Amino acid sequence: MKVSNLFENIPAKLPEELIEVLASTNNVRIERIVSHGHTSPKDFWYDQDQDEFVLLLKGKAELEFSDPDKTIMLDEGNTLIIPAHQRHRVRWTKPEIETIWLVFYY
Amino acid sequence: MKVSNLFENIPAKLPEELIEVLASTNNVRIERIVSHGHTSPKDFWYDQDQDEFVLLLKGKAELEFSDPDKTIMLDEGNTLIIPAHQRHRVRWTKPEIETIWLVFYY
Repeated sequence: MKVSNLFENIPAKLPEELIEVLASTNNVRIERIVSHGHTSPKDFWYDQDQDEFVLLLKGKAELEFSDPDKTIMLDEGNTLIIPAHQRHRVRWTKPEIETIWLVFYY
Repeated sequence: MKVSNLFENIPAKLPEELIEVLASTNNVRIERIVSHGHTSPKDFWYDQDQDEFVLLLKGKAELEFSDPDKTIMLDEGNTLIIPAHQRHRVRWTKPEIETIWLVFYY
């Protein structure tokens, strides 16, 4: 058993979002995602077959949803469950610091 | 979709550990657990059918394992995957402040 720290091992430069799979089975995937001002591409929407549990650990982000059309701002400690096929995108992440997410697809 | 905050809505007094199920399906359960100096009962061991992903969000805790016999200290941000049937118990949590865990059983 290996102890990791979600706040550590972040590259100084993040040209792309950093996505690391922490665990996965046939049914489940756990990821750490580190953003640094990154957003989803314009007009891109996630449309997933699984429910997604999101924890924003550090930083700040705004998610956008298409149906109904709305945005949700997430601060440190916030969690949200995005149901399967709820179309969403990352509209904004804080540019000054890393935004660290823990995401559970199930 | 409801936004919650894992650092909030903690009772001022915690005579027992606080366990809240944030999501559950046939295969998966997500819990927030808040300890305040709590430990597992003496000689009690968790022995679970599922793998368990643990994130210590706040506070500090020591886990004890029986086979092999060892302890692991967890600080803020630490994660650990406890395989199914790996017998373990909470040996210690920081008495001065709450220890907040996010746990995925999968």
